[in-house]
Amino acid sequence: MRELLDRIGPPDETARAACRRALDGKTKPRRSLGRLETLAEQIAALVSLRLPPVPEAAIVVAAADHGVAAEGVSAYPSEVTAQMVANFARGGAAINQLARNAGANLRIVPLALDRPTADLTQAPALSEPEFLAAVTEGYNAVPPECDLLCLGEMGIGNTTVAAAIVAALFGGGGARWAGRGTGVDDEGLARKRQAIDDALARHAAVLHDPLALAAAFGGRELAAILGATLAARRQRIPVVLDGFVCTAAVAPLAKLRADTLAHALASHVSAEAGHPMLLDELHLRPLLALDMRLGEASGAALAVLLLRAALACHSGMATFAEAGVSDKPSADGATTAAAS
Amino acid sequence: MRELLDRIGPPDETARAACRRALDGKTKPRRSLGRLETLAEQIAALVSLRLPPVPEAAIVVAAADHGVAAEGVSAYPSEVTAQMVANFARGGAAINQLARNAGANLRIVPLALDRPTADLTQAPALSEPEFLAAVTEGYNAVPPECDLLCLGEMGIGNTTVAAAIVAALFGGGGARWAGRGTGVDDEGLARKRQAIDDALARHAAVLHDPLALAAAFGGRELAAILGATLAARRQRIPVVLDGFVCTAAVAPLAKLRADTLAHALASHVSAEAGHPMLLDELHLRPLLALDMRLGEASGAALAVLLLRAALACHSGMATFAEAGVSDKPSADGATTAAAS
Repeated sequence: MRELLDRIGPPDETARAACRRALDGKTKPRRSLGRLETLAEQIAALVSLRLPPVPEAAIVVAAADHGVAAEGVSAYPSEVTAQMVANFARGGAAINQLARNAGANLRIVPLALDRPTADLTQAPALSEPEFLAAVTEGYNAVPPECDLLCLGEMGIGNTTVAAAIVAALFGGGGARWAGRGTGVDDEGLARKRQAIDDALARHAAVLHDPLALAAAFGGRELAAILGATLAARRQRIPVVLDGFVCTAAVAPLAKLRADTLAHALASHVSAEAGHPMLLDELHLRPLLALDMRLGEASGAALAVLLLRAALACHSGMATFAEAGVSDKPSADGATTAAAS
Repeated sequence: MRELLDRIGPPDETARAACRRALDGKTKPRRSLGRLETLAEQIAALVSLRLPPVPEAAIVVAAADHGVAAEGVSAYPSEVTAQMVANFARGGAAINQLARNAGANLRIVPLALDRPTADLTQAPALSEPEFLAAVTEGYNAVPPECDLLCLGEMGIGNTTVAAAIVAALFGGGGARWAGRGTGVDDEGLARKRQAIDDALARHAAVLHDPLALAAAFGGRELAAILGATLAARRQRIPVVLDGFVCTAAVAPLAKLRADTLAHALASHVSAEAGHPMLLDELHLRPLLALDMRLGEASGAALAVLLLRAALACHSGMATFAEAGVSDKPSADGATTAAAS
């Protein structure tokens, strides 16, 4: 996996600058579209095109179960993971509606739902081969012909795993990183903090190694998201991250090499307590803040609407010259038309 | 106009509660879709339907010119208003692309572009008949068959007018409310602050009357937005406000009667300095914060994507019972399926 990172090229700064110049010529005050402009520039740099076309988006939702659910860390029982995967298949979940609304292809990747990971407070959640198998499954799950990839997850217990991973990467323990997930009560939250601290203590020997700790803490769905994110980077596909768990899943990559997540956009900041802090640690600025805490790529499926709007806007707009609209007034107060 | 307000009914709280119950039965942790849920409830109450369908959106952009532009308060010359209206007609502006992207009908309402308002620092910008004519034009501009109305504006000099209106309504003068608009320099900003304070002094006698001050400070496009907002309230059509100028245009209505803007949603908080304060004054919470400062209903045309997503999501989702997904665990830790 480390060799893969060495084959990833940097963003194309020439394309970014060309995009900047193109946007500055459009009929609007310079930079007045704010983040719609910086997003377009970022995507231009990533896909190496001056004005990228409106992307075809795909959504990949990875699902798996977690041994740590036995510690009473979630408001819902483990069987809900498989029940929700069935709900995804029948089209009844939130992400089915949001994917259709966004015109995005939705792919569900259930990972060994009959074999939950080991309880990370007791043992390594995944062996190295199990971890690599899940990473590979995610790597291969990126649909062909997709030029914008939204990632999300489903897995009862996985906010505990995610919090343990980011506690290991960024410090602070369960007290800093545990949140209420799908809505755990005060006692469940206390158990969750304890489980995170127990996991940190049990796996102290591997905490210095981002990939080893990702395996030890597990989450096949988190590993698959990490794999899909790597695949997208190699293919110069921008990635739209969902909430806390999805962001935690890719955080080990940032620790391996600083620019590995140059293609990652934070769709939203969720209501999960650790998410704003995690985004800060990764220098990611969310596009939306809607108090959501569902997962399933639901936030990513909303952010993709803004990304498509940004690119649709810039690709269709007239320049000052084309439209015969006056650009800046001259210094003495008289005006100059860019068209003249 | 005051008589009209008396004929406006309150939001339907029964529909709001029914929507709440319907959303709580859907396959997701309760309220985990955050603002997507409260938005759906708000629209349910306004249109008096338990689960409102995905709305057909229309965008109305009002455009007009301002005598105060002669005070050197804008980075652009007045002729840009008419040039941009021509650009709208040819489909070359940002809002053309964003409207198409949102699947929304776009209507441009140019108001007497050959007759700028009087300079509000010197005289009333609009006479009462002129003001009422512009309000009426906006009132009648709401397209039939529209069930979500986005409002926006174009008018060189209109952030000065907007700032003067909200300074009169909420106090604080030019120092508090003047911002850089399309990008005025420091000297222009100083002139803008002065123009606002001059306007407040000149029209001191009418500042207690929200509609009289709206006429005295003018902006035919602001008056038209006020009219369209009234028409939408009467027709139970939710309104999506754009940025600072658009929000300032409807602010006098909130002073007339507290619930007049119950149907108004703030699409975004813009980069214009006064906008966050104005939204606070009106108790409006923006959906987006993207550092935009273009106007033209550009922020509203993005927010409509989220509103449509909210309603598309809820109308299509399965309930716990339909999907056979376990709902909350019982108090003793065993689980109960809502379906069983």
